[in-house]
Amino acid sequence: MGTIDEHHDQLPFDVFARSCPSRETLGHVTGRWGGLTLCALREDTLRFNELRRRVEGVSEKMLSQTLHALERDGLVSRDAQPTNPPRVDYGLTELGQEVADRLLGLVEVLEQRMPDVLEARRAYDAERA
Amino acid sequence: MGTIDEHHDQLPFDVFARSCPSRETLGHVTGRWGGLTLCALREDTLRFNELRRRVEGVSEKMLSQTLHALERDGLVSRDAQPTNPPRVDYGLTELGQEVADRLLGLVEVLEQRMPDVLEARRAYDAERA
Repeated sequence: MGTIDEHHDQLPFDVFARSCPSRETLGHVTGRWGGLTLCALREDTLRFNELRRRVEGVSEKMLSQTLHALERDGLVSRDAQPTNPPRVDYGLTELGQEVADRLLGLVEVLEQRMPDVLEARRAYDAERA
Repeated sequence: MGTIDEHHDQLPFDVFARSCPSRETLGHVTGRWGGLTLCALREDTLRFNELRRRVEGVSEKMLSQTLHALERDGLVSRDAQPTNPPRVDYGLTELGQEVADRLLGLVEVLEQRMPDVLEARRAYDAERA
């Protein structure tokens, strides 16, 4: 349980509190690979190697760790088919979809506003050059 | 510039592309301390030490690095008063507010749904015990 403060007095969970488990889950969801993995799975159910190609730059080990953490948090579901060779599809749970929708909203803002970000960087660097 | 794929054919920026600068900014915004810093500043303009108390667990060095990256991306503004001792207020730019609103939406979902996350973890661990 997180601490309760004046801003979240209705909720027992608070990401600002150091030991609240919601902070750990926020980390899984917004971590280096977690966010991109959730966004990729919002588009489609994917197999491990498809996901690896979609999330450019992720290693096999990191993608595997990321998927386990997201599965344990109840965000990603794993569907193993009893075929030979076995086929495993990764998808989002209902909660995973809700979280991914929020993430995609954030990503959309960033992608749209990148010209402003790049302009801000140029101004910041020029002032200090 | 990121690569262009079928899902983002209107946008030149794509977080899925390894070398797109939007991926770096997504990292600043959702990194271990960046997200909490933006959410804290959405509530109020804060001084460095106020911010450090609000974002429990952040070190002076990490908060300083986080603020610099967010300021360079044009998300955080720094207002230094010519008083003695000098007083510096940190706040959000208009773009920072837009980004923080999306982040707060994500945090709200997570804080509300943490009981489901914790239940999923229990089930996951029990299955593997």
